[in-house]
Amino acid sequence: MLAHPSQKYRAFPVVDLPDRQWPSRTLTQAPAWLSTDLRDGNQALFEPMNRERKLRLFQELVRIGFKEIEVGFPSASQTDFEIVHHLIDAHLIPDDVTPMVITQLREDLITTTVQSVAGARRVIVHLYNAIAPAFREVVFGMSVPQIIALVEHHIQLLKRLTQGHPETEWVLQYSPETFCMAELEVSLQVCNAAIAAWDAGPKRPMIINLPTTVEVSTPNVFADQIEWMDRRLARREHIVLSVHPHNDRGTGIACAEQALLAGAQRVEGCLFGNGERSGNLDVVTLALNLYTQGVDPALDFSDIAAVARIAEECTALPIHPRHPYVGDLVFTAFSGSHQDAIAKGFAAQKPDALWRVPYLPVDPKDLGRTYDSIVRVNSQSGKGGISYLLQRDYGIVMPRRMQVEFSAIVQAMADGSETELSSQQIWDLFEATYLHPDKTVNNARYVGYRLFDDAQGQGIELQWMGSEGQLQTRVGTGNGPIAATVAALNLPLRIDSYEERSLGSGADACALAIVEAACPGLPGSKFGVGKDANIVTASVLAVLNVAMRFNHSTN
Amino acid sequence: MLAHPSQKYRAFPVVDLPDRQWPSRTLTQAPAWLSTDLRDGNQALFEPMNRERKLRLFQELVRIGFKEIEVGFPSASQTDFEIVHHLIDAHLIPDDVTPMVITQLREDLITTTVQSVAGARRVIVHLYNAIAPAFREVVFGMSVPQIIALVEHHIQLLKRLTQGHPETEWVLQYSPETFCMAELEVSLQVCNAAIAAWDAGPKRPMIINLPTTVEVSTPNVFADQIEWMDRRLARREHIVLSVHPHNDRGTGIACAEQALLAGAQRVEGCLFGNGERSGNLDVVTLALNLYTQGVDPALDFSDIAAVARIAEECTALPIHPRHPYVGDLVFTAFSGSHQDAIAKGFAAQKPDALWRVPYLPVDPKDLGRTYDSIVRVNSQSGKGGISYLLQRDYGIVMPRRMQVEFSAIVQAMADGSETELSSQQIWDLFEATYLHPDKTVNNARYVGYRLFDDAQGQGIELQWMGSEGQLQTRVGTGNGPIAATVAALNLPLRIDSYEERSLGSGADACALAIVEAACPGLPGSKFGVGKDANIVTASVLAVLNVAMRFNHSTN
Repeated sequence: MLAHPSQKYRAFPVVDLPDRQWPSRTLTQAPAWLSTDLRDGNQALFEPMNRERKLRLFQELVRIGFKEIEVGFPSASQTDFEIVHHLIDAHLIPDDVTPMVITQLREDLITTTVQSVAGARRVIVHLYNAIAPAFREVVFGMSVPQIIALVEHHIQLLKRLTQGHPETEWVLQYSPETFCMAELEVSLQVCNAAIAAWDAGPKRPMIINLPTTVEVSTPNVFADQIEWMDRRLARREHIVLSVHPHNDRGTGIACAEQALLAGAQRVEGCLFGNGERSGNLDVVTLALNLYTQGVDPALDFSDIAAVARIAEECTALPIHPRHPYVGDLVFTAFSGSHQDAIAKGFAAQKPDALWRVPYLPVDPKDLGRTYDSIVRVNSQSGKGGISYLLQRDYGIVMPRRMQVEFSAIVQAMADGSETELSSQQIWDLFEATYLHPDKTVNNARYVGYRLFDDAQGQGIELQWMGSEGQLQTRVGTGNGPIAATVAALNLPLRIDSYEERSLGSGADACALAIVEAACPGLPGSKFGVGKDANIVTASVLAVLNVAMRFNHSTN
Repeated sequence: MLAHPSQKYRAFPVVDLPDRQWPSRTLTQAPAWLSTDLRDGNQALFEPMNRERKLRLFQELVRIGFKEIEVGFPSASQTDFEIVHHLIDAHLIPDDVTPMVITQLREDLITTTVQSVAGARRVIVHLYNAIAPAFREVVFGMSVPQIIALVEHHIQLLKRLTQGHPETEWVLQYSPETFCMAELEVSLQVCNAAIAAWDAGPKRPMIINLPTTVEVSTPNVFADQIEWMDRRLARREHIVLSVHPHNDRGTGIACAEQALLAGAQRVEGCLFGNGERSGNLDVVTLALNLYTQGVDPALDFSDIAAVARIAEECTALPIHPRHPYVGDLVFTAFSGSHQDAIAKGFAAQKPDALWRVPYLPVDPKDLGRTYDSIVRVNSQSGKGGISYLLQRDYGIVMPRRMQVEFSAIVQAMADGSETELSSQQIWDLFEATYLHPDKTVNNARYVGYRLFDDAQGQGIELQWMGSEGQLQTRVGTGNGPIAATVAALNLPLRIDSYEERSLGSGADACALAIVEAACPGLPGSKFGVGKDANIVTASVLAVLNVAMRFNHSTN
């Protein structure tokens, strides 16, 4: 019996590298980025992406600026095989983007993989096998020389197969999987055997990719491992040294940053850290960490909320409200002393000067976001904030981002009056902001609607009263009242979220509809609310409210 | 105009420390832990905790094993003042636990703070002020000598005030806020002035707490800063050197680990990383990182799901499904090759031997969890998994943890049959598991119920048919059908979550109720399902189902 269950574990050994150089270096340029959202990220989802979502995410990754994208496992999945073919045949891969396909060390799989990318301009073929002791002994029952022979044999096969397709530029990526848990001498032997088998050189490009398949040590040990390998790899000048961190100990980003200091030139990861278990490296955070050190990451997150929305839709996983840079709460200050310091910082900040606003590690505008200072209406009495009072006294449940928006509106009023606000005053402000009865857009007052689903199709007819008393109608088509109302308004309005819930019960029950909308070209989003006993009417009113809040006209 | 917005930022300077020692060290013992859940965590919530939630979380923190707990800001909040007093007066603070109270450098606030803890056995008073250049220049307009005089003056005041209360053991914690952004020479001067002003020594305990108020550099730079300070602090042997990392760059855990290597002896943080913006240090992950290196963290997370539930309830913030150690998906393997390696690892693992199961960085049992291998029913055809098929074909929407549970049940069946399962087969298994019509508990068959809310109170009368045909009733009280049914069953069953939604529409519509329950003493949770046109009946059936699934008897 163990004295404590922690005795089942032991510290990972440190690397003997007293003359390590990485802790004295700084990051001065962005690495090459490889997105594995469509492969390592996808394989960790309850519902893997279908073809449509894969293609959508591929195009978003290209738009962001990834030049290398792992597109799948074509020898293991017919869907992946077809998607890879489609990307190539339909010319969906820009000239400066290289797709990567992964396969295990098996002859038939390698043959299928090469077939799957026939006709591509340039391709990275990614071969991997596990090399750590637990895998050699428990999983495969193979010795180190057997592992090396296995690697050499399959890389030589790939070399022969690819020589038959000189129209494609072939790049080999070799990953000694479970590198972080393997003896460094073994990793080096296996990698150097792979380099020799491929004959890496000026016209034979090759990537050595070192993963923390499962994080097992503090991040400084991984940096030491990388620097140790960087100094010893054969034909080093012809090799791109890459890392593939996971996040089991919550230190994936630190592993990547310190590995870059230690000599890595390329990183693999996923948007917002999707991936097996605790995730792959979060490439968004790493890129923006570089950005805030003055290094252009060459990835575009100037509208980070839009990227987040696509990622959430494709993965069906949420982004946490405290996720760096992108979370709903990371540009929110609750504390009065923080708000005060931030206000002084904004006042002192000159355009294009070095950014120096306290408590804001990055200018929210750079990411298409805004800074939100949240007044604690009642924090002195400990009874919670605005959303608490609205929920307690009026039954209003606001989504979190709407809480941020409305708190800023309350803040503006509180600053003006300099007194503590009552629950009634907050409700009055809520009504004036979101539930104002006068719905006037472009001088025309909303009167009513007819929703139709007939020979005309599906849509809505909005009825308006012009300034001179004339009744107008505008028709919008769409498969529901919200889409149809947006169409009828003919505004550049994009509805990003919608929720509706009952308010009250019994004879007085009504529905409260809340929409979140963005307007292309303007940062951030706004909320609109509609309240009515009829759930469809509530939805229509919510869209009208947010349209008015964006102060659009219907020209 | 800047060529790229990243030019608004610059790299944080490295520390000149060529003989740094920390990268060669390993972690061999746990630090002292300070939970700031009730203070720094609480002040970053939309709805700060009320008195009841604060007391509940305080007791959970004590149970987990925290010996130092920051309980609030009594000079800024009447609620905090009363809570601190209540903790002391009602003797809710165990002898080996020390509360900490924070205050700014203002005479009236320090006086109130000392009053708030009158009668305590031992207290840490936490003084802080911002010292970085942006704050000195932009926010306060003070020189370094003025900052030092400010610190000295207020610590001398605290010293005089506390000398009037010799019945309490007074500990000073001084935090040079924004330490990570300040010049090291300035930090050292200010800290040494604080140490001298308090006259730290054998009977005058003192903590110097160095925060990354906002993360601004790679985590190796913070470690260098800590080692630099560790070597130079005055009266070092009488000082506890503490760190307080935030997480703006997603590297809070790495900062803490490497700071411990660099000489820090104590860390401040919150459960699951709650706190301002991107959060405070996640003390749970740091503790379990130590655990998996063979170091007993002296904090108890052997039922991590229960801790997560309390934290989620008190903060109203979710825990991400990929959060290390605690997230719903971190012990889930989707990939066949991972599942295979894990299965071989489990087979080879001997009890009490060093843990060596591939892809599982920790034994899930150590955390009261289970390993889940998820079969991809249809992954080869790319059409998604079990939950997708059940939703598409039967309208069943399962909560994520239930997907994990049911996938394991499907896996067991798939392993038996070795063929791919159809949607119909999955549905049959779902029905047999969760919707079996025979509800028999302890040889009595469920017949029906009466729900009452009258002079008897609120509750339920469950009707049973015994094995010999006799009708029995059992009454349970509770303010709803679920609580009342649990009471009537008289089982050690704790309902942790409940959801109910409509299934189908029109005349065929019915309700599907899903409960998640735990049984004290058994790891993990189980789900129960009830389906009926009557929403109350569906809830009752769900509780009966989960009770049967735990295989309880009603002795």
